[in-house]
Amino acid sequence: MVDQTKIPRKFTYVTLRNYRQVARAIQKMVVRGAPAIGVAAAMGIALAANSSTAKDQDRFMAELRKAGTVLSDSRPTAWNLFWAVDRMLRKAEATTGSTKAIAEELVLEAQRIAVEDIESNEKIGEFGSSLINDEDKVLTHCNTGTLATVSYGTALAPIRTAVRQGKNVSVIATETRPRLQGARLTAFELLKDRIPVTLIVDGAAGYVMSQRMVQLAIVGADRITSKLVANKVGTYLIALAAKENNIPFYVAAPSSTFDLARSDQVEIEERDPREVTHVAGRRVPPRGVAVFNPAFDLTPVELVEGFITEKGILKPADVAGWL
Amino acid sequence: MVDQTKIPRKFTYVTLRNYRQVARAIQKMVVRGAPAIGVAAAMGIALAANSSTAKDQDRFMAELRKAGTVLSDSRPTAWNLFWAVDRMLRKAEATTGSTKAIAEELVLEAQRIAVEDIESNEKIGEFGSSLINDEDKVLTHCNTGTLATVSYGTALAPIRTAVRQGKNVSVIATETRPRLQGARLTAFELLKDRIPVTLIVDGAAGYVMSQRMVQLAIVGADRITSKLVANKVGTYLIALAAKENNIPFYVAAPSSTFDLARSDQVEIEERDPREVTHVAGRRVPPRGVAVFNPAFDLTPVELVEGFITEKGILKPADVAGWL
Repeated sequence: MVDQTKIPRKFTYVTLRNYRQVARAIQKMVVRGAPAIGVAAAMGIALAANSSTAKDQDRFMAELRKAGTVLSDSRPTAWNLFWAVDRMLRKAEATTGSTKAIAEELVLEAQRIAVEDIESNEKIGEFGSSLINDEDKVLTHCNTGTLATVSYGTALAPIRTAVRQGKNVSVIATETRPRLQGARLTAFELLKDRIPVTLIVDGAAGYVMSQRMVQLAIVGADRITSKLVANKVGTYLIALAAKENNIPFYVAAPSSTFDLARSDQVEIEERDPREVTHVAGRRVPPRGVAVFNPAFDLTPVELVEGFITEKGILKPADVAGWL
Repeated sequence: MVDQTKIPRKFTYVTLRNYRQVARAIQKMVVRGAPAIGVAAAMGIALAANSSTAKDQDRFMAELRKAGTVLSDSRPTAWNLFWAVDRMLRKAEATTGSTKAIAEELVLEAQRIAVEDIESNEKIGEFGSSLINDEDKVLTHCNTGTLATVSYGTALAPIRTAVRQGKNVSVIATETRPRLQGARLTAFELLKDRIPVTLIVDGAAGYVMSQRMVQLAIVGADRITSKLVANKVGTYLIALAAKENNIPFYVAAPSSTFDLARSDQVEIEERDPREVTHVAGRRVPPRGVAVFNPAFDLTPVELVEGFITEKGILKPADVAGWL
């Protein structure tokens, strides 16, 4: 996989050889983006299956479940991770034959999940592009492009498809502190695609909307429950400012992001204070200051104009009965 | 004056010997904070008067007006700057006697403005402390303490006074991109005062409020018109999230910040893209990305629970008739 912590300085690949390396890569954000870490976790289970030396099926399944637990423990918020691990373990249980046959099936299943992700993103692009008019400017947050998925992206997919349709579309991207995924990754992807992109600090999102410098906002999601959207910290503020300024606020995500059995109980990951205190390796604030570093926040679904999924654009009220 | 660009790495003083150096110091944010740059500008006019070699009064006044223009051109948004320059020039016009006598009076006037700033802040502290209960956590943005004023601060003044009254108060401070005044300056000041402070990224302000981790929010202001509060970019988002979560949102500012003749026409300074692209001297995003870097945003006064001034706490509707 691409080492996302190095972009845009370096574009390098790392090869992960076992599920523990995959779990660590997810934890360290070498791979990030809810769909991407879901696929990575599926590949992790496939690696565990492939390298197993278990003699009997019980032992084999115990190893896979152990791998599933380690992978699930890597990060707590993105639902795609749990969804993918669950799907892989269910596939293992449902497959008959030797452990080798099951392992082969699990490699295929991980590849299926990867392919489905690309297909979903293309559908999200198609459905979402209908919301974007020629000359529109779109606000987005964090990175939701190829790097956050297997390819094409979630919130960036409608923008990409609209551009392919010949629409003149430009993007205002928040830098997305603390990890600066907007500045590092979204700017990198969009420049590469020659889609005009303007960077702002996260705090400027409200001003940009109040001045009507964008016509819509599209973000991704790490988990969508019946009541809340968990997404990169700062999303909730963008949703509030969009509502206040009558700018439609959309969430683009494949169905693997939806955790509709849950309503308002979502674990929000708190990450290392160093992500906040150290920028480009240098400490900014004085020593001794406490830090609270939630990686995500929670946006009530009432603030969402629509969910752009691979199955179409859904109103929040229609999500429960539909997926 | 203290060189604020160096804090917390170094705490050093710079000596400015003429008004052009003062204007440059304001422009480069060696001194920042609306009240502080107002006082700095007043001192700049005093320096111009003191060092004038003009033989006649017309020439002398022309020099002062020139200094006033240069100082006023240093930054466009903070009203205190224009207020201070205007007050100094009016004092010069109203003073009779030799140019030397006028210069002496202007030095006194600049010192009066400095002393009044401290007195105002202490009053703001007294009035504002009534809003803060024992065990309260207060959210603040940017830096509004001693460094932003002559001493004691605007939004930090109520917190300081509440602590002096024996209340157990702690602060959640946004880091305040792009210049990181919260991380660098507010954290520095509060740690020095042994007031507990927790740093968050700007995007986390909404999550902190939705989780009720703070009981109120207090920010400063760069200009307050009859309809809008211009303050550090990101303020508007905090005000929206405060309203949504029923957390009182207060603006603390002396009357020199109020520009009530104006309603919705406020020039918002756009600063160097490097403030966004370069953190701690290192470039973050790929080359070629465009940047929009407004230093301030505009919050409708309807979102303000009250203005904490040296004359008392005012409801937005009462401001016009009162100051």
